[in-house]
Amino acid sequence: MTSSRSDGLFSGTFSRGGAAAEVSDAGWLAAMLDAEAGLAAAQAELGLIPAAAAEAIAKACDPGLYDVAELGHRAGPAGNPVIPLVAALRERVEPGLRRFVHSGATSQDINDTAAMLVACRALVPVLADLAACAEACARLAAEHRDAPMAGRTVLQHAVPITFGLKAAGWLSALDRARRRLAGLDLPVQYGGAAGTLSVLDGRGHEVLPRLAADLELAEPVLPWHTDRTPVAELACALGVVSGTLGKIATDVKLLAQTEVAEVAEPQAPGRGGSSAMPHKRNPVGAMSVLACVQRVPGLVASVLAGMVQEHERSAGPWQAEWETLGELLRLTGSAVSWLREVLEGLTVDTDRMRSNLGLTRGLLMAERAVAALGGSPAAREAVDAACARAVSDGTSLREALLTAPGVDLEPAELDAALDPAAHLGSAGVFVDRILGRAG
Amino acid sequence: MTSSRSDGLFSGTFSRGGAAAEVSDAGWLAAMLDAEAGLAAAQAELGLIPAAAAEAIAKACDPGLYDVAELGHRAGPAGNPVIPLVAALRERVEPGLRRFVHSGATSQDINDTAAMLVACRALVPVLADLAACAEACARLAAEHRDAPMAGRTVLQHAVPITFGLKAAGWLSALDRARRRLAGLDLPVQYGGAAGTLSVLDGRGHEVLPRLAADLELAEPVLPWHTDRTPVAELACALGVVSGTLGKIATDVKLLAQTEVAEVAEPQAPGRGGSSAMPHKRNPVGAMSVLACVQRVPGLVASVLAGMVQEHERSAGPWQAEWETLGELLRLTGSAVSWLREVLEGLTVDTDRMRSNLGLTRGLLMAERAVAALGGSPAAREAVDAACARAVSDGTSLREALLTAPGVDLEPAELDAALDPAAHLGSAGVFVDRILGRAG
Amino acid sequence: MTSSRSDGLFSGTFSRGGAAAEVSDAGWLAAMLDAEAGLAAAQAELGLIPAAAAEAIAKACDPGLYDVAELGHRAGPAGNPVIPLVAALRERVEPGLRRFVHSGATSQDINDTAAMLVACRALVPVLADLAACAEACARLAAEHRDAPMAGRTVLQHAVPITFGLKAAGWLSALDRARRRLAGLDLPVQYGGAAGTLSVLDGRGHEVLPRLAADLELAEPVLPWHTDRTPVAELACALGVVSGTLGKIATDVKLLAQTEVAEVAEPQAPGRGGSSAMPHKRNPVGAMSVLACVQRVPGLVASVLAGMVQEHERSAGPWQAEWETLGELLRLTGSAVSWLREVLEGLTVDTDRMRSNLGLTRGLLMAERAVAALGGSPAAREAVDAACARAVSDGTSLREALLTAPGVDLEPAELDAALDPAAHLGSAGVFVDRILGRAG
Amino acid sequence: MTSSRSDGLFSGTFSRGGAAAEVSDAGWLAAMLDAEAGLAAAQAELGLIPAAAAEAIAKACDPGLYDVAELGHRAGPAGNPVIPLVAALRERVEPGLRRFVHSGATSQDINDTAAMLVACRALVPVLADLAACAEACARLAAEHRDAPMAGRTVLQHAVPITFGLKAAGWLSALDRARRRLAGLDLPVQYGGAAGTLSVLDGRGHEVLPRLAADLELAEPVLPWHTDRTPVAELACALGVVSGTLGKIATDVKLLAQTEVAEVAEPQAPGRGGSSAMPHKRNPVGAMSVLACVQRVPGLVASVLAGMVQEHERSAGPWQAEWETLGELLRLTGSAVSWLREVLEGLTVDTDRMRSNLGLTRGLLMAERAVAALGGSPAAREAVDAACARAVSDGTSLREALLTAPGVDLEPAELDAALDPAAHLGSAGVFVDRILGRAG
Repeated sequence: MTSSRSDGLFSGTFSRGGAAAEVSDAGWLAAMLDAEAGLAAAQAELGLIPAAAAEAIAKACDPGLYDVAELGHRAGPAGNPVIPLVAALRERVEPGLRRFVHSGATSQDINDTAAMLVACRALVPVLADLAACAEACARLAAEHRDAPMAGRTVLQHAVPITFGLKAAGWLSALDRARRRLAGLDLPVQYGGAAGTLSVLDGRGHEVLPRLAADLELAEPVLPWHTDRTPVAELACALGVVSGTLGKIATDVKLLAQTEVAEVAEPQAPGRGGSSAMPHKRNPVGAMSVLACVQRVPGLVASVLAGMVQEHERSAGPWQAEWETLGELLRLTGSAVSWLREVLEGLTVDTDRMRSNLGLTRGLLMAERAVAALGGSPAAREAVDAACARAVSDGTSLREALLTAPGVDLEPAELDAALDPAAHLGSAGVFVDRILGRAG
Repeated sequence: MTSSRSDGLFSGTFSRGGAAAEVSDAGWLAAMLDAEAGLAAAQAELGLIPAAAAEAIAKACDPGLYDVAELGHRAGPAGNPVIPLVAALRERVEPGLRRFVHSGATSQDINDTAAMLVACRALVPVLADLAACAEACARLAAEHRDAPMAGRTVLQHAVPITFGLKAAGWLSALDRARRRLAGLDLPVQYGGAAGTLSVLDGRGHEVLPRLAADLELAEPVLPWHTDRTPVAELACALGVVSGTLGKIATDVKLLAQTEVAEVAEPQAPGRGGSSAMPHKRNPVGAMSVLACVQRVPGLVASVLAGMVQEHERSAGPWQAEWETLGELLRLTGSAVSWLREVLEGLTVDTDRMRSNLGLTRGLLMAERAVAALGGSPAAREAVDAACARAVSDGTSLREALLTAPGVDLEPAELDAALDPAAHLGSAGVFVDRILGRAG
Repeated sequence: MTSSRSDGLFSGTFSRGGAAAEVSDAGWLAAMLDAEAGLAAAQAELGLIPAAAAEAIAKACDPGLYDVAELGHRAGPAGNPVIPLVAALRERVEPGLRRFVHSGATSQDINDTAAMLVACRALVPVLADLAACAEACARLAAEHRDAPMAGRTVLQHAVPITFGLKAAGWLSALDRARRRLAGLDLPVQYGGAAGTLSVLDGRGHEVLPRLAADLELAEPVLPWHTDRTPVAELACALGVVSGTLGKIATDVKLLAQTEVAEVAEPQAPGRGGSSAMPHKRNPVGAMSVLACVQRVPGLVASVLAGMVQEHERSAGPWQAEWETLGELLRLTGSAVSWLREVLEGLTVDTDRMRSNLGLTRGLLMAERAVAALGGSPAAREAVDAACARAVSDGTSLREALLTAPGVDLEPAELDAALDPAAHLGSAGVFVDRILGRAG
Repeated sequence: MTSSRSDGLFSGTFSRGGAAAEVSDAGWLAAMLDAEAGLAAAQAELGLIPAAAAEAIAKACDPGLYDVAELGHRAGPAGNPVIPLVAALRERVEPGLRRFVHSGATSQDINDTAAMLVACRALVPVLADLAACAEACARLAAEHRDAPMAGRTVLQHAVPITFGLKAAGWLSALDRARRRLAGLDLPVQYGGAAGTLSVLDGRGHEVLPRLAADLELAEPVLPWHTDRTPVAELACALGVVSGTLGKIATDVKLLAQTEVAEVAEPQAPGRGGSSAMPHKRNPVGAMSVLACVQRVPGLVASVLAGMVQEHERSAGPWQAEWETLGELLRLTGSAVSWLREVLEGLTVDTDRMRSNLGLTRGLLMAERAVAALGGSPAAREAVDAACARAVSDGTSLREALLTAPGVDLEPAELDAALDPAAHLGSAGVFVDRILGRAG
């Protein structure tokens, strides 16, 4: 029975979205067989093996014919699953054609090519969900372009921003991370035992472009058995995507706090409840995003550390990539799928945003008041003093400034200076810039 | 169908040994149900719930009654698998007793207690395999106590050591790592919604010692919902064990190189072959150890980073532990199981060790020659010069020293000074010390 | 000029506290010289070198005699700083006694022993600051033993807790982390070129206990050149301490949010201001703790990955420890020094805590209401419905329950059920337990 | 006194090359002042501040006027070094123009822009050293295009390759990593207190393109205060470069082993010696590369984890970047500087390579022999049996095959089949491809 990580006890959190299925054992097996069939096809096109062999091999490359548990059992002592898979594949091809199976290849050729296929296939839903997240952010940015809210630095109210600007920042990060992910080079692998393709008598390199074209992967300049750049760059790109997802989820989580209550996640029966507290509506989406992405940096570090490989095939670091790459795709995929749900169904309470703007009784307009008073060091000192007085007396900055020595603004001027909605700077322009670029 | 990581495509490498089964979904489900049953039993002992309820709950806590995939599916939106499990468990208890299921508990109480049970159970085979590794090292150290070989620093021949001393070093590290792992405190969790156990009207803390005793776990001073020290210390201890396993496997891998050939891994049909090279006998055991341990430091870092949790339950970092802890146990367990096989079947070629000692034509005795000449800076200069001459002329250090100006040792004195086996210092004493201590 | 990390541009954040000076170049140089002097003293005690040599060496081991930049410059090509240091030390000893400098030792003996001395010395202020943090937590827990506040899970109000319980949780984690750190074994290193101490003709091991006693370090069973367990366990213990500091700082940071305002950090001129916002009072202490600890898990992973060392001295992983260990001590030390300031000067606003308890209009008493209604599934359904009504109608849980069908509690019974301060379960007992144990 | 990491005890190993100076405190201070001066210049160009102010500010932005230790001391409680720097800068500008210092900016604007400047400047020597490494590899690949050596997989002899192919693989990886590093987008930062630039009354965004042009950095679409993609992508690119350097250094280290001796590092007085072993010539360059790169993955993970930032400025993760980014640049820079020295001075012993090819007595030609016998499973079985016989009898594969049943090759045919130099497949083509592409 094929084991799969998409139907396990913790899969709801960590295996949401389409990537999990692609990195399952079934996904890997299919990719390995596609690599073997693709290799035979490319070699047949070049006349290196008979067309009949390629056909027979293609027919035998049906995942339904293989038993993952059996392969996995033999893979341990063999050192990798391709060795027993090739043996099993040969058994399913008629004896006279068996020599053409896996011709000139080493296990790593198939395993690496399969890894790139798995990655390619897993990235399809990841990129689709990222695009949907970006679209949701664009919608939020457009809808709330001018909705004022507190800008918060070091978790303290700072100056007013707009929710549109916040969503625009999310969108900008998503766009960049997504472009990088979509632009990665994922190459086929084919080098034979140690990268020379010696069994093919000097024609081996001709196979590379055909194999790459057949499998819709990139063609490498030369075999990359111990140059793990393609895997490392993929891991890093997933790491950057995850960081971006985590940033957005953190904002949602913080804005959804009981005390802040400016956004809320979509509700559904069985979603975000608590076994002990019937009233709880947990931001389970943001929480799940954060649970997934918490695990990513350590996995990226593993892949990077594993680039340090010996000679023409390493003893450990290469093998360590297999499951790690799957985890990276699965977790990033799950995070982006969760975030999509959150962003597409996010409830935004602009009234609450506006009312929270008043929590500091005007203090977050202090920078503005300094400017209204001329921006000089003296102005800043006056405002500092007024802020201190407002805090100690429990009054508003407006009151404190009205009675401050040396501050001679009229109440109306002061009201204008202290109106959050009137002092949003370039927020709207930034929103428009990103929407224009993202459009 | 329960998914499990012990029968997958890559399980042969990464899920060897007994830990994998314990951290599988089946292992987690059993542990969660044990936690629920244990809680009910402890509460019944204290008269907090009826004995009949505890009995009914115990009967319903049969893993065979539950569908992991179904639970996992509902766990996603709920936020954790305990929420649907408790619902399913209640359905399997007669209506009048249902209120006593999961009494006073929060999901995290069950999930954390289950994690500690899973860890406890997974550590049994890990510790047994570690003990077997230590025993194998002790045997190697005793058998080869006086077998000289090249000590190698920065991968260059340095001075002679013994294989016994090398094995003693392995043993010493295994002993320390093992003691730490065996001595860890793995506590039950029970704090209710936010650590006060308020539903139990001030008697909740009485449950803790009974629950701990029933489940054979430690009793915490207070609930540790967001104090993740127990998990972090476990992760760290596994990290240290893994580092030690990796060190030993590295030595085996390097000693088994074609050019060194001082040790060889056990052979078996289907073990360590190559799909492309029929003659290959890969050190697949050392390779598998290294593949497993390569993945561990990143996972430990994830757990440590995840200690930074919010308030009374965190949104992300806690959940991120679940699979990570399982991976740490599975990978460390697989590595130690592989190493056990390697060490128990290791072929040691002491003749080759002795002949390799001659590869530098005596240069690795240079430190010794300096001492024989009196140890002064002048002696060192003379030996340095002789070494340089031996290298440039392709001759031996013996020849170079015999003709060196200012070196007036007789040939016999020189031979004595240059005999590796005669200059092993305290190697034997160190072997005896560790065998005595380990015995 | 000696470079030091305690007077740099970012040192205010990352090098606070006493550890930074110990891990500076000056600290390392002093420790290396102490190791050389200690070695000579131990050897003289055993009659292995003349007493006059030990005295001359001790006199030459004055850090003021050496130029760090010069040593560092030569250390690069040599491979480590001990090689040029020993050369420089010999120059400062009269010619006839020079041969007794560094006798029988390899560079790593001195470097590793110095590392353990540096760690030992850096841990003194770290442990003192940890003890002060624990004391501050104990005071907070005692003072606010019964002060109700909202327990927050997944950043949502859950059920009431006390601030005393929260501080007790901090204390419990600090205690455990501190005990581990204080109980570590930090051994001297002395094994000679490859662990046999061959130059000492079989008496080398006798040096170990004396050297350990002289330097107040532990005695290892045998040389641990490539068994990095002591360093790894130290790194892990610092990692666990850091995680605990980060958890506490996170709580402070969240409680100090503008919207929550339940605690505030101590104020001082120039502390926590903003260059752009005169009114800002940033929780700069919690922020600095979090900045430091953010960097720790990756460093711990580096040390763990570096345990995989080759043969008798590794080419890379060992050397990689030097600065990393210093960073771990410096950052953990800075974090704990910052946290001490925060905890010792923390302003706790129990009125605000109590008023925030009302933010959900009683919803956080929902679990309690279920219990008051008998705890049955039907009771839970009734409370769920009331919660939903309270949310949709903007009313309180009290109102919603008073008019709920099937809920027949008197208003007074309901008030009792919904009083947060009356339902704190075992919170007080837990506080007392930890205070008793910590006392 | 300015602290610097380029003249410390461990700097020879970890601070080689030009990057260290750029990331020193002096480098940061200069970059911060350049950012302030650049901001003023850009604002003066737009008429936002008087030209005289920009001139006065430019004059005051002379690093020699500031005391790093003093700034660092104040930076701790302030939260970052820009706050005291701006105060000190204002003091150095005449009172009437002080209000134009740091206009509209927040500390993070200057700190982030400085970080990008520091990175830009540190990358210059890194890229130059990478180019020199690539050139050295290209020369090695061209010179040794057809020099046969053992291909080694899992540290065992596999099939013959050429040293040219190995060097070509190094070159290919270097090229890709270098292109990525050179192509990074490093943007200025300018957003004011919370990203709106509100103080500039809606004209703030006009400053961005001018500031970017002045400082030769990229222009961001909008402020990226809590979108850390630029830093994360830089960290990742450095991580991939480091992995590649580590792979090459590992090959050098392994090829330089006493038992292999196919390459040697350049020698110089004081380079690679041992304090205990006068004959040692350690591969100190490869060792230093590996020491540096060992530390990189954990730092990359720190940066990635730190992307998860709160709202408009984070409390901890942002600050944690400062030193970490410097470490990444310094360590990668040191590693590439070391590798350049190694590659430019590498001694390649092609005779030893050829003689090592015979170590398996022909076994590494086994794959070739299978092909010569027709490539059928039967052929493989025959060769397997001959290999086994060769191993057990201590004879050569040639002898074993000559007497094998069912093998009817003439001795000359067999000699041709077993000649390593005649079976190098596409190795030469691959070398030519990469040289053509790299040229």
